[in-house]
Amino acid sequence: MSSTLGTLYKISTFGESHSKAVGVVIDGCPAGIDLPLEVIQKQLSRRKPGQNKLTTQRKEDDEVQVLSGIENGKTLGTPICLIVNNKDQRPGDYKKMSDVPRPSHADFTYQKKFGIRASSGGGRASARETIGSVAAGAIADFILKTKFDIDIIAYVSRIEKIDLSENFSEENLSREIVDESLVRCPDKSASEKMVQRIEEIKSERDSIGGVITCVVKNVPVGLGEPVFEKLEAKLAQVMMAIPATKGFEIGSGFKGSKMKGSEHNDLFEYNENKLQTTTNNSGGIQGGISNGEEIYFKVAFKPTATIALPQDTSDFEGNKTVIEGKGRHDACVVPRAVPIVEAMAGNVILDMLLRQNARQL
Amino acid sequence: MSSTLGTLYKISTFGESHSKAVGVVIDGCPAGIDLPLEVIQKQLSRRKPGQNKLTTQRKEDDEVQVLSGIENGKTLGTPICLIVNNKDQRPGDYKKMSDVPRPSHADFTYQKKFGIRASSGGGRASARETIGSVAAGAIADFILKTKFDIDIIAYVSRIEKIDLSENFSEENLSREIVDESLVRCPDKSASEKMVQRIEEIKSERDSIGGVITCVVKNVPVGLGEPVFEKLEAKLAQVMMAIPATKGFEIGSGFKGSKMKGSEHNDLFEYNENKLQTTTNNSGGIQGGISNGEEIYFKVAFKPTATIALPQDTSDFEGNKTVIEGKGRHDACVVPRAVPIVEAMAGNVILDMLLRQNARQL
Amino acid sequence: MSSTLGTLYKISTFGESHSKAVGVVIDGCPAGIDLPLEVIQKQLSRRKPGQNKLTTQRKEDDEVQVLSGIENGKTLGTPICLIVNNKDQRPGDYKKMSDVPRPSHADFTYQKKFGIRASSGGGRASARETIGSVAAGAIADFILKTKFDIDIIAYVSRIEKIDLSENFSEENLSREIVDESLVRCPDKSASEKMVQRIEEIKSERDSIGGVITCVVKNVPVGLGEPVFEKLEAKLAQVMMAIPATKGFEIGSGFKGSKMKGSEHNDLFEYNENKLQTTTNNSGGIQGGISNGEEIYFKVAFKPTATIALPQDTSDFEGNKTVIEGKGRHDACVVPRAVPIVEAMAGNVILDMLLRQNARQL
Amino acid sequence: MSSTLGTLYKISTFGESHSKAVGVVIDGCPAGIDLPLEVIQKQLSRRKPGQNKLTTQRKEDDEVQVLSGIENGKTLGTPICLIVNNKDQRPGDYKKMSDVPRPSHADFTYQKKFGIRASSGGGRASARETIGSVAAGAIADFILKTKFDIDIIAYVSRIEKIDLSENFSEENLSREIVDESLVRCPDKSASEKMVQRIEEIKSERDSIGGVITCVVKNVPVGLGEPVFEKLEAKLAQVMMAIPATKGFEIGSGFKGSKMKGSEHNDLFEYNENKLQTTTNNSGGIQGGISNGEEIYFKVAFKPTATIALPQDTSDFEGNKTVIEGKGRHDACVVPRAVPIVEAMAGNVILDMLLRQNARQL
Repeated sequence: MSSTLGTLYKISTFGESHSKAVGVVIDGCPAGIDLPLEVIQKQLSRRKPGQNKLTTQRKEDDEVQVLSGIENGKTLGTPICLIVNNKDQRPGDYKKMSDVPRPSHADFTYQKKFGIRASSGGGRASARETIGSVAAGAIADFILKTKFDIDIIAYVSRIEKIDLSENFSEENLSREIVDESLVRCPDKSASEKMVQRIEEIKSERDSIGGVITCVVKNVPVGLGEPVFEKLEAKLAQVMMAIPATKGFEIGSGFKGSKMKGSEHNDLFEYNENKLQTTTNNSGGIQGGISNGEEIYFKVAFKPTATIALPQDTSDFEGNKTVIEGKGRHDACVVPRAVPIVEAMAGNVILDMLLRQNARQL
Repeated sequence: MSSTLGTLYKISTFGESHSKAVGVVIDGCPAGIDLPLEVIQKQLSRRKPGQNKLTTQRKEDDEVQVLSGIENGKTLGTPICLIVNNKDQRPGDYKKMSDVPRPSHADFTYQKKFGIRASSGGGRASARETIGSVAAGAIADFILKTKFDIDIIAYVSRIEKIDLSENFSEENLSREIVDESLVRCPDKSASEKMVQRIEEIKSERDSIGGVITCVVKNVPVGLGEPVFEKLEAKLAQVMMAIPATKGFEIGSGFKGSKMKGSEHNDLFEYNENKLQTTTNNSGGIQGGISNGEEIYFKVAFKPTATIALPQDTSDFEGNKTVIEGKGRHDACVVPRAVPIVEAMAGNVILDMLLRQNARQL
Repeated sequence: MSSTLGTLYKISTFGESHSKAVGVVIDGCPAGIDLPLEVIQKQLSRRKPGQNKLTTQRKEDDEVQVLSGIENGKTLGTPICLIVNNKDQRPGDYKKMSDVPRPSHADFTYQKKFGIRASSGGGRASARETIGSVAAGAIADFILKTKFDIDIIAYVSRIEKIDLSENFSEENLSREIVDESLVRCPDKSASEKMVQRIEEIKSERDSIGGVITCVVKNVPVGLGEPVFEKLEAKLAQVMMAIPATKGFEIGSGFKGSKMKGSEHNDLFEYNENKLQTTTNNSGGIQGGISNGEEIYFKVAFKPTATIALPQDTSDFEGNKTVIEGKGRHDACVVPRAVPIVEAMAGNVILDMLLRQNARQL
Repeated sequence: MSSTLGTLYKISTFGESHSKAVGVVIDGCPAGIDLPLEVIQKQLSRRKPGQNKLTTQRKEDDEVQVLSGIENGKTLGTPICLIVNNKDQRPGDYKKMSDVPRPSHADFTYQKKFGIRASSGGGRASARETIGSVAAGAIADFILKTKFDIDIIAYVSRIEKIDLSENFSEENLSREIVDESLVRCPDKSASEKMVQRIEEIKSERDSIGGVITCVVKNVPVGLGEPVFEKLEAKLAQVMMAIPATKGFEIGSGFKGSKMKGSEHNDLFEYNENKLQTTTNNSGGIQGGISNGEEIYFKVAFKPTATIALPQDTSDFEGNKTVIEGKGRHDACVVPRAVPIVEAMAGNVILDMLLRQNARQL
């Protein structure tokens, strides 16, 4: 197991979906930060189930508690431990599945890897595990915003086959605008179709996935640690560590593989007292290091694995059986993953910023 | 800088494109392995420029030397240092560029990050840096193959807009078959078109990119270390650490984001005394842990940044200028990246295998 | 800050003396271990204040709670989070000291390093921080004992100038025998003098230190990871990370520096079907790797820094002042450090054992 | 194996005593440093055998070569690879020993750990392995001196039973003064006795050990990363990673365990615009963090294990045999270990300095 991420802003998450609590230890958070707990709670609330008619009706309060590292609202520079108690456990809902590994879940692989697995829920493979990362990311995000004016904004850019409109512009994008949409898609016309499609698929007892786009504004030039910790490499790692993700693209992504060099190259131009690029196929990163342009990446999510439709599968012993998801699960988790993507980006970028800062002798 | 990868099979690369040598230190290679140097040399030779008419005519011998850790052809369990001297340096070719950051290269970002950069060539951002990883990966690969019968095979599945044929089958895939194609595409009809297209773009003094697909066969169930070192997360990280990569997909990838749960879920079936899945949208990984199916992933490469066509850009001081690539560079690097992808996968999988092995008390 | 230790048995501690809780996350604990919580509680109780007339009368219940990673008494292989709530805080006792850095405490250095420090108690520099390490070490210890029959036994071998008797023998040493002494010194005559001396120094409102000796029996040959993680190097690191420690010796220690090679060398002899050494000046480690003999080391502890006697010192602003320790502190902490030394050794040895086990392909 | 040390100034050593080369990769060295190679060569030369009549007559040129990371005398910020070729190998000298594990050497433990070992020489357990660390430490040392005016000076303070004079003063200590003594002991009268004693023991075909004291001046307040990377904990680790070391003391060390709190506590006093301590039993570190006073520690070395005197021991198969050291080895290695101690300290302190610098947002 390796539940630790980062070199200087180092986070270690813990907790199963049905253990007493889930949480995180953050080692290396800068000291003396005035940290309102609301900044953490806000992102946790954006992540939690039961937010609106589209999401599962499991109510999870997800109230964060500080065990250490913060005193009178100020960070001490010592490890910050944050926990969220697991209240709404209802292990009964999952019981029937216990001998049948849920298709495209981690029941089978955890059982084989460890010879044991949490008796109910998804254990560490549950999306609930991300609470620790989201809490740590909210703090990173707050420091990046208040100290460096860095903005991290993610939004839903595809649900199943519904994409953003051709003419969608990211201008004036903000988390508030993103949250005006039930599905966190800031393109109103696409958003409406997405909402409708999710309701439809929910009534069909099936599920769908989608894509989240993330932009990070005002990142200074110079972040990223070649070669194995290039900025896009670390972003890819943490995004692919989010449950249900299947793909990652930086800048031009897979589309870039279809372009010619003369089209793809980002030419330099002197603007506002600095060198900028006229295009951004690089997605704000060249040679693994931020170049001062917007960082821009996409993350693909598969459809939720738990569906109410019956599926012909096999139990652990090899007997054929039919499984029907009984837990309360979202027909589409992508909107709730928006704050997770932001948090993961924040965790990586703050770590990189501290590492680069160490060089300024 | 973070040029170290892995927990138990730990590799640390070094070297600029025009420094005295490039190389790698491998710490944690199992002891007592009979290791023919040819296994390393072979992958280095598949990577090197000047292999055929399609690749750059820079001749790089890329002959590997062992400085430590191997005695009489056997690994000692101690750090293995491998180097390849840099012979064909011709710094003159790059000289003119020195005041002009090459578009979509790392000149600008390295200069800004470090306040200095290698005076010629791409420094650490050069593809030549991958030699260390390829050497380490060749050893990993050899151990995985000879001790665990694990096969890692990558091939070119797209060049610019030319994709594999619809009816292409991976059956009987091998590195030998892949190498029968000048562009390392085992689909003959696609391969021919790709070769033609690369020659065309070369004559146009432009460049193109493509996609590499990688399959890993016979991976045992249980590899991968959730949550931040899920198998696909580490694969994504190392693939995005390869120069010129823009995207990563595991299993269904971005296409998976367009599917319904009832289509995407991999159902279980009892076959040959074990539980298998009837489909493999998961790409051989569930919950970050290998499930015994083929690991299957794709990596997108942008077109080579260095092109001979003139480009309107700016020098470091902000003066407008025109840049024309004079170095000998491939119009398409994707075929040469095939052994790099294999090596990176090998480095990750052997590390994960050793980590899982540590648990067998 | 770096509160994380270990590669495969990785522990991350958190908590200040007066924060809501102190605790630890253990990432990499083997799965499927039947783990009675008593094994943790027992070592915590041996560590806690208020055990007998010699130790401080602060009552700390130090009851361990499991937040994750253990279900129905079995380890899941996932991160184990253990916490102990801080109940007996009485910040008032420390208040007066707040503007005066306590001599030979960490008030001054924490304040300078972080620009802030916990407003009461010793923060992370408090001995209370060791609770996390002790809890993790108790689990390591249990696994080492039940799976590998490895015994870790520490005891007090010096209090101030009172040493073990010349003829003291370690034969039949056990934790039970150690605990029969109020000062955890298994040499009865020395123990009596030590008890008397501690009572004396307590009445003088002063403090004293001492030395702890630790032996580890049945360690298999082959543990330790040269060169920077030689077994004695890691033991030295973790022992010197315990508050109040000033020195570490392996085997012959400083006395070894006075010996001749012909006296110091441990000669080999074939016994009981294996090669053993006739002496053990090496302390069970050669070249950084365990050699199958008893691991034997010593740790020096300074006298408790907090004393009730008035001391002429200066406040943070540079004004001369007199400080008198008002908190309830032990006149001698060494006996309570015995389980800490054992725990730290356990954390290191289990990690090394797992790392060595990873090599058995 | 874990031959990597450090978080931001990360060094990875490689090489056996008789492999083609030994060396180091330094990842994270600050960029733009004007680095004369002489600073490296000088410390290597102070470490090498054959310096004078007291040391072994093996001639090792130990000429350092730069493979990467430095261009035109300036560091690039990229990994620096330094190597020293192994010239004087004479494997024959060691041959006879091959079936007999040398007493108090690592032959036995390496063989058991890895199932194989270097066929001649000490492999990684050889003192020759330290060349990489010394080279890296020389660079660290140079940066610490030129950028921060930090001085690291080690010297021999004991050879066998000959200690410094009571009235020895460290005032005006410098490496030059230390090197005026053949045994690197700046106390002239002690030095003479030491030289004489080493010649004596050499003629007896035996060996002796000793103690090295190290002082580090001008270390800023705030270095050290509690809790597991307290400054003294990291210093202890790296010192105990040097071959032949048996003990480590910070400040008062083992003597501190015999003192009373009222004697041992370092009281504060305002001097020269800052808070200082009137004594330095802490050895410059409180709570794991430097306090601005001189860092002061000692390292104990055992007598050289290789002696020419015959020793009754056993071969690997258990047969009794007599072993006589035939290699050219020092009767006392302690003087040559002085630059190793300095280098190790430099590696740790620069890493800590960079880590602390990262916090200055």
